Amino acid sequence: ATTFRASEHQHIRYNPLQDEWVLVSAHRMKRPWQGQVEPPLLTPVPRHDPHNPLCPGATRANGEVNPHYEGTFLFDNDFPALQPDAPSPGPSDHPLFQAEAARGVCKVMCFHPWSDVTLPLMSVPEIRAVIDAWASVTEELGAQYPWVQIFENKGAMMGCSNPHPHCQVWASSFLPDVAQREERSQRAYQSQHGEPLLMEYGRQELLRKDRLVLTSEHWLVLVPFWAVWPFQTLLLPRRHVRRLPELTPAERDDLASIMKKLLTKYDNLFETSFPYSMGWHGAPMGSEAGANWDHWQLHAHYYPPLLRSATVRKFMVGYEMLAQAQRDLTPEQAAERLRALPEVHYRLGQK
Amino acid sequence: ATTFRASEHQHIRYNPLQDEWVLVSAHRMKRPWQGQVEPPLLTPVPRHDPHNPLCPGATRANGEVNPHYEGTFLFDNDFPALQPDAPSPGPSDHPLFQAEAARGVCKVMCFHPWSDVTLPLMSVPEIRAVIDAWASVTEELGAQYPWVQIFENKGAMMGCSNPHPHCQVWASSFLPDVAQREERSQRAYQSQHGEPLLMEYGRQELLRKDRLVLTSEHWLVLVPFWAVWPFQTLLLPRRHVRRLPELTPAERDDLASIMKKLLTKYDNLFETSFPYSMGWHGAPMGSEAGANWDHWQLHAHYYPPLLRSATVRKFMVGYEMLAQAQRDLTPEQAAERLRALPEVHYRLGQK
Ligand SMILES: O=P(O)(O)O[C@H]1O[C@H](CO)[C@@H](O)[C@H](O)[C@H]1O
Ligand SMILES: O=P(O)(O)O[C@H]1O[C@H](CO)[C@@H](O)[C@H](O)[C@H]1O
Repeated sequence: ATTFRASEHQHIRYNPLQDEWVLVSAHRMKRPWQGQVEPPLLTPVPRHDPHNPLCPGATRANGEVNPHYEGTFLFDNDFPALQPDAPSPGPSDHPLFQAEAARGVCKVMCFHPWSDVTLPLMSVPEIRAVIDAWASVTEELGAQYPWVQIFENKGAMMGCSNPHPHCQVWASSFLPDVAQREERSQRAYQSQHGEPLLMEYGRQELLRKDRLVLTSEHWLVLVPFWAVWPFQTLLLPRRHVRRLPELTPAERDDLASIMKKLLTKYDNLFETSFPYSMGWHGAPMGSEAGANWDHWQLHAHYYPPLLRSATVRKFMVGYEMLAQAQRDLTPEQAAERLRALPEVHYRLGQK
Repeated sequence: ATTFRASEHQHIRYNPLQDEWVLVSAHRMKRPWQGQVEPPLLTPVPRHDPHNPLCPGATRANGEVNPHYEGTFLFDNDFPALQPDAPSPGPSDHPLFQAEAARGVCKVMCFHPWSDVTLPLMSVPEIRAVIDAWASVTEELGAQYPWVQIFENKGAMMGCSNPHPHCQVWASSFLPDVAQREERSQRAYQSQHGEPLLMEYGRQELLRKDRLVLTSEHWLVLVPFWAVWPFQTLLLPRRHVRRLPELTPAERDDLASIMKKLLTKYDNLFETSFPYSMGWHGAPMGSEAGANWDHWQLHAHYYPPLLRSATVRKFMVGYEMLAQAQRDLTPEQAAERLRALPEVHYRLGQK
């Protein structure tokens, strides 16, 4: 019988955090790619564009004028998917037709006054300011809403409609689907094993080492065993931390520094401004914030679509949409490639 | 208090088939779109290209020469994600690191000898031949494998790497994620309500009417109450049918005709060759095929990405990946638009 090798032999892996399976078919990287390539990033972004509604001093869709902000800048999304006052659809008349009320707020957070920078090109203190702003918006909206989703869509490929460095914050009156799954899994793990799932997971990855990308005094970055996107990573604090606002000043500084390193590696991988969607997950808040959420461990997911080059992405279509996620290289191969990349940004090195 | 209107007020809806929620924020269609637009389809596809490995008479990557086929043509994928003989990864050493064996086969099915046609441009008898080929490949692979996933990725936007009209068939030794969810939901519904979930659902939609797109003697097409993609549809037989091979000749003819109508409407919506991923779900097969699968109802899902025009798609990113699917028009609005479209293809009408 042939000896199993993950890089040669397809197999399935289980994601215990989100209760999902992924098909790992690493031998598939050998196939030629004749499909769609993404348009390369050609036009350089101007540092300041008075018509860009995210820039300092610009006028937004609702007529408001942005301040001449110098650090981060948080404002209400002019086209929010969640509004605070939507009426309820009322009781459902049939178990197959269930609708429920959804209330919330959507905010936009600019990371920097300049349009031509991205997080990895910002300084560590500037990134630290973003982290502080994330913590305070979580605290502020979490006072009212059970879930505060901070997420960044970076790059046109990820549906980002504005090149200015920014993220979004959507707070909701309900626990979204993915949050529900992570809540169920983490709660079950804690009650079965007596400790938080992600604490034990981080500890194991530190021992096993082959999926680690970066480690620092307070943080770990790794390609999870069950990663779906080619270069997906998970960012975890070493200490048991339930939510962003709990991070100490030292942990925040260290986070800024490890984020800069990770995002620099990402940009260096294909020498491009690496697209991704990323977001933070922490314990639910709102009126239940005081309950026992010790099974939760704060973490960030990075989901980058690129597979082979700056213009060839992984398409999560067909089989993935109808059956199961599938990946074309092993998480260990991805981690190894990311580990080997320099921590100096290719654009800064050239200077 | 304001009266609830689905097209004005965001709310969440439950998908009882896949146990998921979607956020419906129809008012969001009002926002301007400044993000990525897809490249338009410019180069016409030649009817025959001897270098296209899907064409009759062409040589494939493994050196095999395709026959001069005149109808459908089924062959083994030269770069399969699933192979019949992969060894097992062996027992897991930790509950957070679970891997299992995956075996299977991947096939490609050409729909037609010409590269410049698509299903809606084919004749009803030609589509009927595709349906017969789907039924027999299901029967053939289902003799060995518990899950046979037929899916079509149409269009470069859906990662389709070859313009020749074709679909894929991936059969696996395991029940993929989505199949497991549908299995759980349908089984639970049957045991609670004494009838198949999708039978009752189809009946209700026939009564409620506002999400119907097309009906025929044997089939229904509707935008499900819980649709995620802007113009997503569900194709259902009226009779209780568990799997494709069970379809009668009359049901197959009628299916060919309703598929042609649906795909014509799709192309007419934005006057483009409408991209989508579609696939069939039926009761599991393999060694357990003889068990009681009466809770299953055969169905096809169509997941098309376009939102506003032939070049502006819905991006399922950020919030959608990290929290919950979100849609920008109601399923009822989508159904109304699809219903209103002609059943004659815009390219045939012009002639
Ligand atoms: O097999 P193809 O058409 O080359 O590839 C396409 O479909 C597959 C199955 O959905 C996906 O895994 C690939 O990412 C996609 O590009
Ligand atoms: O809000 P934006 O950046 O205009 O829009 C983007 O992010 C949203 C949240 O993930 C998605 O719903 C949109 O499809 C996407 O284009």
